[in-house]
Amino acid sequence: MPSKTETRRQDLHNRLIDLGETVIITQGLRALKARELATQAGCSVGAIYNVFPDLHHLALAINGRTFKRLSVQVSGAVGPLSTAPPCERLVAMGLAYLDFAQENTAAWTALFEIDMALGEEIPGWYMAALEALFDHIRRPVTELRPDLSAEDVEFLVRGLFSSIHGIVWLGLQKRISAVPHKQLSRMITLILSEIGV
Amino acid sequence: MPSKTETRRQDLHNRLIDLGETVIITQGLRALKARELATQAGCSVGAIYNVFPDLHHLALAINGRTFKRLSVQVSGAVGPLSTAPPCERLVAMGLAYLDFAQENTAAWTALFEIDMALGEEIPGWYMAALEALFDHIRRPVTELRPDLSAEDVEFLVRGLFSSIHGIVWLGLQKRISAVPHKQLSRMITLILSEIGV
Repeated sequence: MPSKTETRRQDLHNRLIDLGETVIITQGLRALKARELATQAGCSVGAIYNVFPDLHHLALAINGRTFKRLSVQVSGAVGPLSTAPPCERLVAMGLAYLDFAQENTAAWTALFEIDMALGEEIPGWYMAALEALFDHIRRPVTELRPDLSAEDVEFLVRGLFSSIHGIVWLGLQKRISAVPHKQLSRMITLILSEIGV
Repeated sequence: MPSKTETRRQDLHNRLIDLGETVIITQGLRALKARELATQAGCSVGAIYNVFPDLHHLALAINGRTFKRLSVQVSGAVGPLSTAPPCERLVAMGLAYLDFAQENTAAWTALFEIDMALGEEIPGWYMAALEALFDHIRRPVTELRPDLSAEDVEFLVRGLFSSIHGIVWLGLQKRISAVPHKQLSRMITLILSEIGV
């Protein structure tokens, strides 16, 4: 049975993720500040750093939740299609990604705004969540391109993820090649329909 | 013959683009500030706004130059290949895009950081530069997919641009799916080789 201290620590840990998630969803990653969080959580700033080494790790934990929600949405879209042609499954996943990004724009944006290049070690659970997402893409890709080496399958899987991400990102940013949702869906469908034809 | 005032105005216009370009290349878009530019150009802050309505328009002019350099690099890569199979030409362009982004990361990043969503009218010359880039992609796509409607060709052209952009962007950001140059090239080659096979 965990000690009272440990239970209290775990409670604060979860509360900070809840509060931080609301900040990210409503105001974005940059608005995540220790002092505001401490006030909202009814604790000292020091208590936050007793639970998370820094705000970067809190943001990672929040992104981890977003990742899980994304995975649920993507696998929910592809689950009922297990007997459908692989290309159809890829399209369903691409469109689920677009929908998730549109419905959760701030949290989804935070996934890509967080700095992973600081030489910080990326937590194992984070890599596992990313791999679970790539697994969904790998299955139909392997069926469509049984001729490819395992290495090239990986490149194609990651390349497809980045491609769909690029279409959604540029489309939602309404910058250089802004397009409405229906047109984004069509772009994603066209690109993914080219695989292994 | 232009008046002396007009010549002086044009000189300052070009000098501000030169100076601003150096700022963007070395420090990025956010470092573009009227006061620093005025000091460097040896003019008053007011004189800048006599030549550009605001810094947004100066940034647009600088991005226009970057766009032109990008177009030259992309068409330079595809020019000698005019008799090559369309798929090979697409790959050459994709790899030229990757090289340009790697060699001009700050200027290239500024292309996508500038806010086009403010309801500001996008200048005609900017749209023309973008269209010139899409033209290069449209030719091989039309050859590869003569069966597509004109509308779907447009979606595929823009979708392919966004796809390659997504691969390069995520790859260079060294964030979520970081990969070395050689692997990015392979991803681009694999994705583009799927078109119209």
